[in-house]
Parts: sequence; structure tokens; C-alpha cells
Amino acid sequence: MFKQFSIDGGIVAPSGFYADGIHAGLKKNALLDMAFIYSPKIANIGAIFTSNRFQAGPLRHFQKHNIRETNFILINSRNANAMTGSKGIADIESLFDHLSKKINLHNPVMSSTGVIGVYLPLEKLIAGAEQFDLTAKNGDRAARAIMTTDAYKKEIAIRVELENGKSYSVGGMAKGAGMINPAMATMLCFITTDLEVSSDDLTRLLRKNTRTTFNAISVDGDTSTNDTVFAIANGEAGFYDEESFDSTLQMIMKYLALQIVADGEGAKKLVSFHVRGAKSEADAEKIAKTLGDSLLIKTALFGEDPNWGRIAMGIGASGVEVSEEKLSIAYEDVKVFENGLNLFNAEIEARAYAIMKRKEFTIYCDLGLGDGEFKSYACDLGYEYVKINADYRT
Amino acid sequence: MFKQFSIDGGIVAPSGFYADGIHAGLKKNALLDMAFIYSPKIANIGAIFTSNRFQAGPLRHFQKHNIRETNFILINSRNANAMTGSKGIADIESLFDHLSKKINLHNPVMSSTGVIGVYLPLEKLIAGAEQFDLTAKNGDRAARAIMTTDAYKKEIAIRVELENGKSYSVGGMAKGAGMINPAMATMLCFITTDLEVSSDDLTRLLRKNTRTTFNAISVDGDTSTNDTVFAIANGEAGFYDEESFDSTLQMIMKYLALQIVADGEGAKKLVSFHVRGAKSEADAEKIAKTLGDSLLIKTALFGEDPNWGRIAMGIGASGVEVSEEKLSIAYEDVKVFENGLNLFNAEIEARAYAIMKRKEFTIYCDLGLGDGEFKSYACDLGYEYVKINADYRT
Repeated sequence: MFKQFSIDGGIVAPSGFYADGIHAGLKKNALLDMAFIYSPKIANIGAIFTSNRFQAGPLRHFQKHNIRETNFILINSRNANAMTGSKGIADIESLFDHLSKKINLHNPVMSSTGVIGVYLPLEKLIAGAEQFDLTAKNGDRAARAIMTTDAYKKEIAIRVELENGKSYSVGGMAKGAGMINPAMATMLCFITTDLEVSSDDLTRLLRKNTRTTFNAISVDGDTSTNDTVFAIANGEAGFYDEESFDSTLQMIMKYLALQIVADGEGAKKLVSFHVRGAKSEADAEKIAKTLGDSLLIKTALFGEDPNWGRIAMGIGASGVEVSEEKLSIAYEDVKVFENGLNLFNAEIEARAYAIMKRKEFTIYCDLGLGDGEFKSYACDLGYEYVKINADYRT
Repeated sequence: MFKQFSIDGGIVAPSGFYADGIHAGLKKNALLDMAFIYSPKIANIGAIFTSNRFQAGPLRHFQKHNIRETNFILINSRNANAMTGSKGIADIESLFDHLSKKINLHNPVMSSTGVIGVYLPLEKLIAGAEQFDLTAKNGDRAARAIMTTDAYKKEIAIRVELENGKSYSVGGMAKGAGMINPAMATMLCFITTDLEVSSDDLTRLLRKNTRTTFNAISVDGDTSTNDTVFAIANGEAGFYDEESFDSTLQMIMKYLALQIVADGEGAKKLVSFHVRGAKSEADAEKIAKTLGDSLLIKTALFGEDPNWGRIAMGIGASGVEVSEEKLSIAYEDVKVFENGLNLFNAEIEARAYAIMKRKEFTIYCDLGLGDGEFKSYACDLGYEYVKINADYRT
């Protein structure tokens, strides 16, 4: 048994972590655009990366050096260092060579988001790093420095207390997954803990919990070259407890994932697709994700149109074996289709419409075929999304 | 050897076919909303249907009766007769029972597009059919009656002359695949010929040619419950010639498919994604379709933004094994990325931008890995698409 408490501080809430965001001149208007996470005590690190075949420079740099422990993560926005070939990796190495004159680096790690196909502005980054104060505990500023089209920063911290009196903390920050003018933005997430967790355990638990969190959300269905989730553990707490850590990691990843959806480009709604009664969890997952990715469904959410025909279309289009006669669809507690029968009438439509007006709600799809279930999360898609993504680069 | 000539008449260009469109009161403002295709001589029919698991009533009716020859196709818009269960099929049978009092029906076939989950308005359809003039040869009016959000009708006819002096014709009409307020629209296509083609050959050749035509286009990536391509052959020409028919069918399906993309909801551009140098044709197809379906790429087309980073993202996201160092991307003849190197500069960007301004153009992606190639076709996606699909039902 354990207790979890929400606390302040984000990624610097756990003991022994330092972080800050500064303005290196990548963004305009003196906005924060470069950040670091520093742990004087060398920390274990686990990672999961995008499934995109063109992994960006920072991802390939991390894998090239097979990094399993580090004391320093450098993050920049406005430049993804993607499609930059071997120079993209060499630039990171050269950057860290420079920084190592000032900072005692151990397997430093980089993470980037921004324009594709442009080499890193090394001089700006080196000059920017001159501003770093390694004793700063400004998780808030780091969370703001990694933002691109995000409307607000995303951070969280949880303190865990075990029955035996021991305690530790986990912090996290993330930035959103929508595309940015002039090029691609990315989902980045950084999780810190003072618990003693091995690199393998970090990666395994990240992977386990990604399925129902970051992989269950959809903003536009596209996959970036830079998507990354890092977790680092410096062991300052002096012990390991998997049960509570797994639970806390899941909670933090779920929170940040939902924040990303809610802050999707131009998004006004956060909608859950709860698929139940599937033959298997895999079937339910496939359907829930198809619904969350469907452009027709997303635009219907934007239009607040309780158009269950599109939900049925999405279920049928998923490729999963389903039965019209056993299918039921409900907007929250308002059933619109039950066991193959359309229940729509003026009253039901008015009630469903009222639910569509909400900022957050769940659409339930019961397949009536088994016990498999899965929840996905999506935002609506409207004019603002088109505006953000269609504007010519300036 | 054979010659092909574009001719007038659409689906009634081939001998022995009659068709018309009438107003049955399904659409407002006296717009045509119901059509028939009639061949006094019983014709062979081949069909391919949507991969959506929830096939609409007309599709299940056709398969229930295992129809291989017919003399009559009835088509309505504004009601998809989808998600209507066994009543959806019974309604079609009841409708044809009524019509058989007036028309000598042989295995009549139905095809519908429109709202999901609403039963067919049988009385309107029966009353509408009273207006049918079975001696009419108004392919044009039939093509207009099946339109939903289509901005213009889509029809074509080709006359084929063989070296031995024999000749025949093939006609076709189609309606677009975008979603319609208040519910789903559908891709429907009807092809007629007076060539003598068996039902099996019709279905086989439809399937063969669908891959590079109707299955190579993307408007919004969603799959309707009603998508159908029918081909009927009444044998009036008295012979069969596969080589020329295959070629002509391909030509007609390609023409109608491209018309559908060009007339996608709110679409202003018709863009080809020509993927070359893949390890296999299947790889090329997967990439070309991923590019055509990508929301980020479609909005960049709308914004006329030569943002090749999004093209690279789409290629990498397709799941196909690719190499950054061997990849080249070009907008028509303007290379922007070659063998892993970004060629973008002010001049290249200006030239690529000028190409993006065109109404039609091709984006070439060379993977440098083999001989596989495939072309897909997509439209841009802008405010108008959101507007059409987001408006609450009225």
C-alpha cells in the first residue's frame, strides 16, 4: 500500500534534480527556447522513441552511444535536427564538446523539436548554454522553454509515501504533439525521479504505460521524427518499489498525455472513446484508435454534431470483426444506437447535442462480443487547426 | 491493337442502356435525387464493395441474392440505408415488389448514398419511380441525381474500335467520396458496356483496376459503409475483347477517381504523390497512400507550403524501411532534398512555392532502394472541408 500526493515543482520536485529554461535566441520575443535537466549524481535513463523510420539526430545520437546513465539533458525548441544525416549527430557531439569545458558532463543527452531539415544553430546554442545556472530549480521555466504551438506548459509532480515510512517523488513535463509552422512539432516528455530505478526498468515501465497513455491519444494521427519519452532516476531516495512507481508513472504519463490532447492545435474539446465488449483488448484498441484518428469524427466533434453514423462508420472501418445487431453507441448516458436499432428521436438528439456541447465527455461503443475494452482520447479539429498548419512559413 | 475515342452520353453511350434522374422529394429545391439504369436485355453485373465491416443494406441485398445478372439498377441519394439491419434489406425487397408491378424487373439492384441509420422513405421512392421513363437516355440527369456534396457531375464514355472493324462502348458515372452534412456520403461508380463480358470477368477486372484508381485516391481517409463500383455488360456488341476492355476500364476508373479527388469537399488542388525507387511496388503503394492520407500534408497543400519536412515525416511514418541518405524529394522538377541533403535555399524555395501555387502538380519521392513505384492522388484540405463536415445538422 502507498499514498500519492500531488506536489509542486514539476521535474525538479524529486531530490537532486536541477533544471531551467533560458532564451537562446531561437524563438522571437525573448521567449524561453532552451532548457536543461541536471542531476549532479549520475542517473539511470530509460527512453522510448517515435516509430517514424526517419529518427531525428538526437534520437540516433542517444542510440549510437547506447546511453543508459547520464547527468545532463539539453533540450531546444525551434529546430528538430531531423533529416540532417550524420552531420546532425556530429553537431550534437561538437556541442557537448564545447559545453564539457564548462559543465562536468557524463553521457549528455539531447532532445530537440522544431523545423525539419535545418542544421542546429550551434553558436546560438553554445552562447545560450553560457546562461545556464546549474543550481537553478526552475522546472516551470524548463516546461515553458520546450513549448512550440502549445498554449500552456504541461508539468506535474507526485510524492509517494509507502507504508514503511519511506518516500520518493516523480516529476514530469511534456510538450504537445501537433504540427507547427514552419515545420513539425513533436511530443516530448521528460520524467524525473529520486527513486532507485535501473535503466532497463525505466524503459520497460515507460513502454508498458505508453500504450494506454501517449499511444492512446490522437491530435492529427501523424507521427513525428522526434517523439521521445525520457525517464531518469538518480536514486537519491535510496530504494526501489516497483508497484508504487508503476502506478505513479502511469498517472503522470496519463496526465501529460491528456494535457497534450486538450491542448491540441486549436482544440476546444477532450473526448474519450471508450470501446467495450470487444472480442479482445487488441480489437478494442484498434477501434478506439480508429475513432480517435478519424477526421470525419473530429470535425463532427468540432461541429458539436451527435452524428453517431460517423462513429459506426469508424467502427466498421477499423477492420475489426463486428456485428451491427450487437452494437450499441452512447454519448455519456444517452444511448443513440442499441443492439442494431437507431434510438434517435427529437428528445434523444437534444440530449446528445447537450453532451456534445460539453468541453469533456465520453462516447461509449459496446460491441457486445466479449470483454475487451480500451479507451482512447482525441480532441476536435476545426478551423484553427487548418489555420495553424496551412499558413505559409514566415 | 485498338483505338479509343472519347464520346458523349456517359452511361447510356453503350447500346441498349437507358437511364434518367428524377426528383423524388429527397433533396430540397426540386434537385434530382433518384436515378435508374435499365437494360432491356439482361446484363451481366460485377461489383466491388467497401471494406467497411458495416456494409449498408443495398450491398447486403446484392450479396444475399448473389446477383450476377440484372436489367435494372435503382439509385437514390440522401439516404444510405446503412445501419438499418435486416429491415434495410427487407425495405429494398418491398420496394422492388412494388416497382415490379410497373417494370419487368430481373434481379433488380439498389445503390444508396446519404444519411446513416434512417430507414428508406419507401413511399417517396415508390412515388418517384412512377416518374421513370424507361425509354429515356439521360445519362447526364442520372449523373446529377447521385450527387451529394459533389460540386459537379462526373461522367465519361469511350468508344473502342478494334483492328478487325468491331467496336463497342464503355460509359461511366460516379459520385464523390467526402462526408456530407447531415451524414456520410459515399463513393459510388456505375460502369456500363455493350461488350459481352461475364460477371466474373467484370468483377475481376474491376478489382484489378481499383488498386491504381479508386483505391489510390484520398479525400479524407475515411471508409464509407456504402462505397460501391458496379459494372454491367449487356453484350449488345456481340463479342468480348479483354485487352481493350481492361485498358478502357482502367482509363474510365482513373478519370472518375481523379474527378472525385479534384471535387473533394472544399478541394482546390489535385496533387499526385509519385513514389519511386522502393524495394517493392507494395512498399511504394504504402508510402504513396500514407502521404495522400496525411492531414499535415493536406493542410500544407492547402497553405501552398513547400514544406518537404512533412513529406519526409510521412514517408518515415509509413512503416516502410527507408534510408535518409538515399531519399530524394522533388516538387515537379524542383529537387528540394537529394540523397539525404537539404537543397533548400531562397531560390529553390521560391520555385517550389510557385509549383505549390498550381492547381495540379506532382510530388516525387525517390527512395533509391529499388524499382517499386506507385502513384496516389489527393486533394488539399482547408477551411471549407471543416465547414462542410462540422456544421450541425439542419
